[in-house]
Amino acid sequence: MSGRIAARLAELAIELPTPPAPVADYVPYVQTGNLIFISGQVSFIGDDHASAGKVGADLTPEEGKQAAHNSALNTIAHLKNACGGDLDRVTRCVSIRIYVASAPDFTGQPAVGNGASELVGAIFGDLGKHARAAVGVTALPLNCAVEVESVWEIG
Amino acid sequence: MSGRIAARLAELAIELPTPPAPVADYVPYVQTGNLIFISGQVSFIGDDHASAGKVGADLTPEEGKQAAHNSALNTIAHLKNACGGDLDRVTRCVSIRIYVASAPDFTGQPAVGNGASELVGAIFGDLGKHARAAVGVTALPLNCAVEVESVWEIG
Amino acid sequence: MSGRIAARLAELAIELPTPPAPVADYVPYVQTGNLIFISGQVSFIGDDHASAGKVGADLTPEEGKQAAHNSALNTIAHLKNACGGDLDRVTRCVSIRIYVASAPDFTGQPAVGNGASELVGAIFGDLGKHARAAVGVTALPLNCAVEVESVWEIG
Repeated sequence: MSGRIAARLAELAIELPTPPAPVADYVPYVQTGNLIFISGQVSFIGDDHASAGKVGADLTPEEGKQAAHNSALNTIAHLKNACGGDLDRVTRCVSIRIYVASAPDFTGQPAVGNGASELVGAIFGDLGKHARAAVGVTALPLNCAVEVESVWEIG
Repeated sequence: MSGRIAARLAELAIELPTPPAPVADYVPYVQTGNLIFISGQVSFIGDDHASAGKVGADLTPEEGKQAAHNSALNTIAHLKNACGGDLDRVTRCVSIRIYVASAPDFTGQPAVGNGASELVGAIFGDLGKHARAAVGVTALPLNCAVEVESVWEIG
Repeated sequence: MSGRIAARLAELAIELPTPPAPVADYVPYVQTGNLIFISGQVSFIGDDHASAGKVGADLTPEEGKQAAHNSALNTIAHLKNACGGDLDRVTRCVSIRIYVASAPDFTGQPAVGNGASELVGAIFGDLGKHARAAVGVTALPLNCAVEVESVWEIG
């Protein structure tokens, strides 16, 4: 891979993980028109399940933020495949939804979500400025702390 | 109704239910361009509220999977109306979001969600391969166990 | 602002609030094609945090409905900006997702969500008829009771 975003990833010393395969009967992404819908991505990188549990109970907010960063990394790894390997084709990050497995009294979802938003901003700059929702949920697949679902526009 | 998908439904011995009317001030689906956004569908089929409660507490994971199947059935019943009765117009299932009312420690949302994904796959084949998110939530309308929200592309 | 929707707002004696700025690294809305994706909006109006807490525990369902109304007001304030000030450009409310911070046994999310749906209907009439999902979640940003995420079509 070469290009602007590839250079930016190198500059940030970010290596995209091997994106996880769907654990069920669906696909990692679907394109419709120039929109890419990416499946919800868990916060585990490969076999590393450090980000298991609930934020505000098992994990600190800072650990939750790292979990959101991980989910965004997995997302971008799938996005690269959706772009045929060329992330320069991304014209906009449209929308990111951050589900945070939360202790009942944990309300710091925005700061957790920043782990995803800041990564997207660092990589894509102005094209990474997205609409967003962050919500606290009861539990997530495989007991991961964060799941990120997203929509992207490509050219 | 005739056509390829109608034949497939007959082959699978699937009868679409009378889709539930919205229980509030909204509509079952909206079309924008060639996308159909379908409202969140509960897991009750008509008056049958067997799938009430939370998965991991009141319902087993297998019962949760059946609930997700039900929500997908209601979804496809509305989708048929959105297509003017002809499901052959569906060109892609773009995205499915599966909300699972979950006991605090239940993390088997992917297997529950397969109840929806597998039905869509069985009916639509490759056109049914969708992006997906499955999350565990606190409680759902009318105490149903699963709610399914979806986006479809039609021609 | 003049025009049909501005007149309707005046008729309903609705004053749009100053929409809250994102509390994190994202933007209030993104346009892709003729769709506007609006970020999740909390149920606080300016500094008024009356709608804090969980519905079914800290707040009554009626208070939850007011919270949903507030989230929709914030949404429409951002939508107005997305339309360059002219809400007459709105051709359809496509989809509204209502997250309700809920006590574990609270299942009245549809009636709570009506606080948002009814406001959109009152302002936009037939163009306000939207697809919808309402779900009960564990906790929301800043401890607000309701968060509303939405997609709109503009001309």
